Amino acid sequence: MGFWKSLFTTSNTMTAPPSQKEGGVTVSPTAAPDTRIFFSTDRDIDLYDLEELCDAVGWSRRPLRKVKKAIQHSFLVVSMWEQRGSSRRLVGFSRATSDHAFNATIWDVVIHPDFQSKGLGKALMKYLIKRLRSDDISNITLFADPHVVDFYRNLGFAPDPEGIKGMFWYPD
Amino acid sequence: MGFWKSLFTTSNTMTAPPSQKEGGVTVSPTAAPDTRIFFSTDRDIDLYDLEELCDAVGWSRRPLRKVKKAIQHSFLVVSMWEQRGSSRRLVGFSRATSDHAFNATIWDVVIHPDFQSKGLGKALMKYLIKRLRSDDISNITLFADPHVVDFYRNLGFAPDPEGIKGMFWYPD
Repeated sequence: MGFWKSLFTTSNTMTAPPSQKEGGVTVSPTAAPDTRIFFSTDRDIDLYDLEELCDAVGWSRRPLRKVKKAIQHSFLVVSMWEQRGSSRRLVGFSRATSDHAFNATIWDVVIHPDFQSKGLGKALMKYLIKRLRSDDISNITLFADPHVVDFYRNLGFAPDPEGIKGMFWYPD
Repeated sequence: MGFWKSLFTTSNTMTAPPSQKEGGVTVSPTAAPDTRIFFSTDRDIDLYDLEELCDAVGWSRRPLRKVKKAIQHSFLVVSMWEQRGSSRRLVGFSRATSDHAFNATIWDVVIHPDFQSKGLGKALMKYLIKRLRSDDISNITLFADPHVVDFYRNLGFAPDPEGIKGMFWYPD
């Protein structure tokens, strides 16, 4: 651990103070001591904040109307926030679709570049997996770009297990 | 075409007569002339019929309570029926999860062995894709067992496009 630590906490409502402790992680040795990082499963995310986060990692812009619909119809949405004093900043996001019974598929995992390489992506994924497992979802899947295959492998994801292939449909 | 043809029709309610024509396909040259195959998107499927269908292709049994929940929470459920006179038999099934906006993932594609190799799986998939596209879903995905990768490839699905890997999480 560094000379300070930021506690991971969870919150279902952005207005209520986080209550459940998730674990402690060093975010950055230069971060201010009153800084903490916490997760939320609240879907009421400012879509412009989310767009800014996705812009920061170079993703193509998507219609906010559709982003809103996708968030509403995801099984689980996990956002990650930095809190400094009374101000909060969206620094990470991910969501999963599911049939609520067997399968979940994780989409749109993003960590702001300023917050990458600090273990936050790993923490976000572990939290997401824990939540899906607690809902008795046995099959957790995702589609990984080549440069993040090792990241997910380290989290326990196997590519093409037993020869199973991820496939994408393309219009004729 | 064979000496007779069975019309693919669609139905949203199993009690109402199918109304929309989907196209004509030869199911089997030995089938009775009063036999037709049709699709339905009704979720009110007898779970024991579905279990029997899945048993026929050798799938592991799953708790019906969870199967029911998965059907309820799928974005789209398509079943395929053989009708002979007034009796109907479930001969195919598939479903898709989705965020209702960008992504859909197809699960549980099954055709009864007696009805395989007649183009019915292809017809079922084409119908499913058409429905997802009509709902403005741009990213249609699935996880294919090795022996059906070519089947899906012929339908326009590409494995690992641009190196994207399908991954499955395994508990430690």
